[in-house]
Amino acid sequence: MTQAESRVLCPALRNRIMSADEAAALIRKGDNIGMSGFTGAGYPKAIPGALARRIHQANSEGDRFKVGIWTGASTAPELDGALASVAGVEMRLPYQSDPVCRQRINAGEMEYIDIHLSHVAQFVWFGFLGHLDVAVVEVTGITEDGRLIPSTSIGNNKTWLDEADKIILEVNSAQDMNLLGMHDIYYGTQRPPHRKPIPLVAPGDRIGEPTFRVNPDKIVAIVETHAGDRNTQFSAPDENSRRIAGHILDFLQHEVKKGRLPKDLLPLQSGVGNIANAVLAGLEDGPFENLTAYTEVLQDGMLQLIKSGKLAFASATAVSLSTDALKEFRENLAFYRERILLRPQEISNHPEVIRRLGIIAMNGMIEADIYGNVNSTHVMGSQIMNGIGGSGDFARNAYLSMFMTPSTAKGGTISCIVPMVPHVDHTEHDVQVLVTEQGLADLRGLSPKQRAETIIERCAHPDFKPALRDYYRRALKGSPGQHTPHLLDEAFSWHLRALAGRGM
Amino acid sequence: MTQAESRVLCPALRNRIMSADEAAALIRKGDNIGMSGFTGAGYPKAIPGALARRIHQANSEGDRFKVGIWTGASTAPELDGALASVAGVEMRLPYQSDPVCRQRINAGEMEYIDIHLSHVAQFVWFGFLGHLDVAVVEVTGITEDGRLIPSTSIGNNKTWLDEADKIILEVNSAQDMNLLGMHDIYYGTQRPPHRKPIPLVAPGDRIGEPTFRVNPDKIVAIVETHAGDRNTQFSAPDENSRRIAGHILDFLQHEVKKGRLPKDLLPLQSGVGNIANAVLAGLEDGPFENLTAYTEVLQDGMLQLIKSGKLAFASATAVSLSTDALKEFRENLAFYRERILLRPQEISNHPEVIRRLGIIAMNGMIEADIYGNVNSTHVMGSQIMNGIGGSGDFARNAYLSMFMTPSTAKGGTISCIVPMVPHVDHTEHDVQVLVTEQGLADLRGLSPKQRAETIIERCAHPDFKPALRDYYRRALKGSPGQHTPHLLDEAFSWHLRALAGRGM
Ligand SMILES: CC(C)(COP(=O)(O)OP(=O)(O)OC[C@H]1O[C@@H](n2cnc3c(N)ncnc32)[C@H](O)[C@@H]1OP(=O)(O)O)[C@@H](O)C(=O)NCCC(=O)NCCS
Ligand SMILES: CC(C)(COP(=O)(O)OP(=O)(O)OC[C@H]1O[C@@H](n2cnc3c(N)ncnc32)[C@H](O)[C@@H]1OP(=O)(O)O)[C@@H](O)C(=O)NCCC(=O)NCCS
Repeated sequence: MTQAESRVLCPALRNRIMSADEAAALIRKGDNIGMSGFTGAGYPKAIPGALARRIHQANSEGDRFKVGIWTGASTAPELDGALASVAGVEMRLPYQSDPVCRQRINAGEMEYIDIHLSHVAQFVWFGFLGHLDVAVVEVTGITEDGRLIPSTSIGNNKTWLDEADKIILEVNSAQDMNLLGMHDIYYGTQRPPHRKPIPLVAPGDRIGEPTFRVNPDKIVAIVETHAGDRNTQFSAPDENSRRIAGHILDFLQHEVKKGRLPKDLLPLQSGVGNIANAVLAGLEDGPFENLTAYTEVLQDGMLQLIKSGKLAFASATAVSLSTDALKEFRENLAFYRERILLRPQEISNHPEVIRRLGIIAMNGMIEADIYGNVNSTHVMGSQIMNGIGGSGDFARNAYLSMFMTPSTAKGGTISCIVPMVPHVDHTEHDVQVLVTEQGLADLRGLSPKQRAETIIERCAHPDFKPALRDYYRRALKGSPGQHTPHLLDEAFSWHLRALAGRGM
Repeated sequence: MTQAESRVLCPALRNRIMSADEAAALIRKGDNIGMSGFTGAGYPKAIPGALARRIHQANSEGDRFKVGIWTGASTAPELDGALASVAGVEMRLPYQSDPVCRQRINAGEMEYIDIHLSHVAQFVWFGFLGHLDVAVVEVTGITEDGRLIPSTSIGNNKTWLDEADKIILEVNSAQDMNLLGMHDIYYGTQRPPHRKPIPLVAPGDRIGEPTFRVNPDKIVAIVETHAGDRNTQFSAPDENSRRIAGHILDFLQHEVKKGRLPKDLLPLQSGVGNIANAVLAGLEDGPFENLTAYTEVLQDGMLQLIKSGKLAFASATAVSLSTDALKEFRENLAFYRERILLRPQEISNHPEVIRRLGIIAMNGMIEADIYGNVNSTHVMGSQIMNGIGGSGDFARNAYLSMFMTPSTAKGGTISCIVPMVPHVDHTEHDVQVLVTEQGLADLRGLSPKQRAETIIERCAHPDFKPALRDYYRRALKGSPGQHTPHLLDEAFSWHLRALAGRGM
């Protein structure tokens, strides 16, 4: 790249430009590395691969080389996949969704901590996770006065830049310079006892700065790249997703009619995936206008809602789009920049802000039990899928917390409503509404037994209803306590049958 | 009581004074009643009993009479005991600790919802729990201009007074008029989307008013009483409690030395009970000065710390003292009024404020599993003990969240560290430190497997360590996933043995 084309506009920093291999060589065995990246957006494209090659080399020479990898959330094969493939990760946090990574973790070859996303930055500030040695952060450009223009995600980048000893930047010229102005980096956070209220009262409030501050002395390397983000493709919503979306839309209309929701609703948070996208597609045709979103990731469905004018404003920490949606986004960046703000994840997921705004939270789950406890992370109680992510930040502090899943998995052989979940991520206290394609269970104001009856009747698949009713009825007789009746000797029999390959 | 002695100073309200029986007669079958009371402080003393008599009468005539009882938290035999004894409660929320109540719930004769205490008020404002018909609230007095002087707890009283159709007041002349000025009733709350930051940045900040506002037209009855609160007696800390306290104090000193806590710590939250009291007693002799507390209930231990000058300020929602401590408190009320504020529980337990202040949270538990998931509420997974109370508000949002218990229960036959808890109130994500008399497990930055090794070695009782190690080692081999290894066919075998009367 010639100097004229380069986006490293700060003269004093130009001498730190080098290759990815040279930059990766500055990382030491055992370092904890804070990398950018959130749901496949804004992750470093070149250094993780270079580091993986270095690790592979060292390992093949018998020199055990591992690092700690901290990110915003999930990344992409070039990062998690590359490093996990060479067994280069000692400890991974706070969220991942990579197949190779997952396989390593579940094989017991890699340590992983999934953490509430709103806890990560502050745990690092507090010194609870150990020392952060290096930051590896993708940016869109470096301004003449040395400030950093963020790329398609913010995640924990502010924290990595502030806390790491050394900083390595990837300046990605495939990211659009017109992103400048779409970010809001809040520099008002403090450690207790010096904390002040976060002055944010609506999703569109600007409380920070459009660029990252950085101490130039800490920048040890700059790598110039030109590579796109991982682009998630969405399938058209399937029948189950459409039915789940339908139940949610009916329910929201009912709540407006009852006066429990304003007619333009409240800010929406939506998990990732096909069901979430179907709900957003449903809103497209629904009666609600002037909607807002306060969420983690802006995906295709929300972009479409902004385009159509249904969604007036969206706050997130990442933009993660399909190839087509990305084209639309870039061609109309000036339009979207007026309607989207990206924030650090300690703000996008902040309990204070979520509670204040009164979010309608909609998240996916693996399974729920008859009392409404939700498992979002551990298949059969021991195998990690992705991680809790921000679902707990939203569920606990939402105005309304909904969890959704098809009523069965694995071709109908597994029920997603079970007697007892073998891993709890969200307790019954944080689950107001459960939705499957079968129906919606409104659990507000219900005791555990009333919840059980509602969940079984509304949400379970007809194939599994009789067995659930049977378990519950027998628990009503045989349980030592009748507050939350359970038969501990068979509470996991469904999972044990499934593990034995016999379905539930 | 003569008019000269009466504390109903507002002339327009004097004609509403009547007997408890007359007042109870204004309550209808099926009403939802919001009663005052938090941890045995400030509950109505006369009307619950009168209501219980009325219900008993109706029931004995074959007329099924039940009501819904909503409170701040636990009350006393005169309220929960009296109403539960006559089977008068259809639905109880959000927290109780009464033996008769508990027995009814666990026998399946009474519905109960335990709710995060910070959720209760807003769920009522939002209309999520149904209609509130009557408020029955104890106050210390009624001022000439018709404002209400709160008594020894605030709890949800502001919400009950605001939301109920009818208000019945108990004016208790056994409460000290000098309490006036110790309360801070915040009237700035709103429903979303109109919420603003709560302007509280230190435990001693005053953000509200010393008395309750009330619409006089809603007051249908005033009953004059003269009766003390339930007075909890504390036994001197036993050996286990002292050892738990010792581990916590060592840990706090270590954290100060490492720079992870300021030398005057951060605001303390402490659950109720003997262990909590032992920790506070330990602070009395410890090196920390100028402490503060931001907690739910102020008990003997904290009063002592204030008296000795170690604790500069305490914010709570209730004062619940033993007879001796109450004497000390009343004799020096002017002194304590400068150092104590009582707030509505939506503020004492507010996630926004707890997170901002950076609380050190210390709560009791029934049991924890080897991965750090905590059961605070359900003995053997199905029998309710008390309820989650505010423990989740504090644990999730604390700077440091600790849970403590003796390592065994029931004469050493039951281990409080188990392979898997049969009910989860606090997930591993919200538990940074576990403490038993055996030791303290610092779980920060540890993956599930590392947590298991630490918890077993540090916290389990020697009688149960070998069996826990054995379970964990076999899970490391036989678990389908190695992220959080478990053997689902024996995860509850410990509880099943205990249920069979064979101990764990
Ligand atoms: C729970 C979660 C994994 C569901 O994701 P999704 O894409 O809607 O789910 P899918 O239906 O595609 O299921 C994912 C996989 O789990 C499997 N699965 C789903 N339910 C299952 C169950 N009850 N038992 C066993 N496996 C199950 C599916 O078969 C699928 O497996 P496959 O990839 O081998 O086909 C996802 O929402 C998640 O990671 N949540 C936690 C974090 C979060 O909520 N983040 C967003 C907001 S902050
Ligand atoms: C969990 C909790 C019940 C512990 O209370 P405590 O007074 O410290 O506990 P104790 O050791 O006295 O135990 C209470 C009872 O549970 C029993 N128990 C304790 N651990 C047990 C276990 N692992 N298995 C079975 N029973 C157990 C005890 O034997 C005792 O029973 P008993 O009354 O029949 O003797 C209490 O802290 C609580 O209710 N917590 C939830 C709410 C909360 O945290 N509120 C405060 C802050 S907001």
